[in-house]
Amino acid sequence: MSNKKGFTLWFTGLSGSGKSTLSRMIEGELRQRGASVEVLDGDEVRENLSKGLGFSKEDRDTNVRRIGYVAKLLSRNGAAVITAAISPYAEVRDQCRLMSRSFVEVYAECSIDELTRRDVKGLYAKAISGEIKNFTGISDPYEAPENAEITVNSETQTAEESLAIIMGYLEENGHIAGVAASA
Amino acid sequence: MSNKKGFTLWFTGLSGSGKSTLSRMIEGELRQRGASVEVLDGDEVRENLSKGLGFSKEDRDTNVRRIGYVAKLLSRNGAAVITAAISPYAEVRDQCRLMSRSFVEVYAECSIDELTRRDVKGLYAKAISGEIKNFTGISDPYEAPENAEITVNSETQTAEESLAIIMGYLEENGHIAGVAASA
Repeated sequence: MSNKKGFTLWFTGLSGSGKSTLSRMIEGELRQRGASVEVLDGDEVRENLSKGLGFSKEDRDTNVRRIGYVAKLLSRNGAAVITAAISPYAEVRDQCRLMSRSFVEVYAECSIDELTRRDVKGLYAKAISGEIKNFTGISDPYEAPENAEITVNSETQTAEESLAIIMGYLEENGHIAGVAASA
Repeated sequence: MSNKKGFTLWFTGLSGSGKSTLSRMIEGELRQRGASVEVLDGDEVRENLSKGLGFSKEDRDTNVRRIGYVAKLLSRNGAAVITAAISPYAEVRDQCRLMSRSFVEVYAECSIDELTRRDVKGLYAKAISGEIKNFTGISDPYEAPENAEITVNSETQTAEESLAIIMGYLEENGHIAGVAASA
């Protein structure tokens, strides 16, 4: 463990809601401030820790718990950890919260209507047609958090606005030092 | 990532050869020196990252690769990572070596005869009788490393002697600072 204060910034939200984009923006901001940062992206973690798991509730929960375990290890060693998996189930998110010492949940909110309209990767169309099964928000549940520390919304805010909200929260709560007016 | 120099001390060796004992001793030494340390023990990692995997070559390789992935993430964020899984196959150990920036392989050597004589947990008797299947060194292969940075031997050395060898290596190679004669 480290004397540096690690924390876990845990995104949750539907596919396309802005989790990965915001994660990379925050990563850049934190690195500029000299922090030790690790982004645990949903796809990368599945590849490295959960190959063979599917998208049943049980398999999703196992995958998310593994992300939580790695976030725990990294954050207690002083890293700023950002996770960007859909993590649809509230109970497992709460288990992950208990594992990490400084856990900040960020709800990346966006309506299904808007996500279906954007559909950058064409996934929503395939989910609606049934070509993709178990798609969160369409054919699989998504449990929005009721007590997230931060909520951002890619329908009503620009990414820069959301970034400012998150960075502001991290500063105000002592997770990162404010940008000092250095000489 | 961190400015602190992380590294991975990767133990390999048969069950009972001293991996876990030495890991905990080194962990204590490193913590006394103020290092940020994480021990990835074989059993704990199986529980958290590899539940459901068995002991076929493929499953063992997957489990060891996951340990390598987590060691990579931790060490590049400045932690001193100690892994203590049997990790019987040379090829996968070498893959893990390539993942981590500063990788030190420690072969915990001990003859099967001696391990069978000690048999602290009674596992060797059960493996020999066939009650436990796929037991490394008895009914499953163990590929000893040919180019480990360090070899220790619990048959010919005390744990304290092995510890001194490992700490000496870490100091000499700049992974940790030497114990200064502080005022």
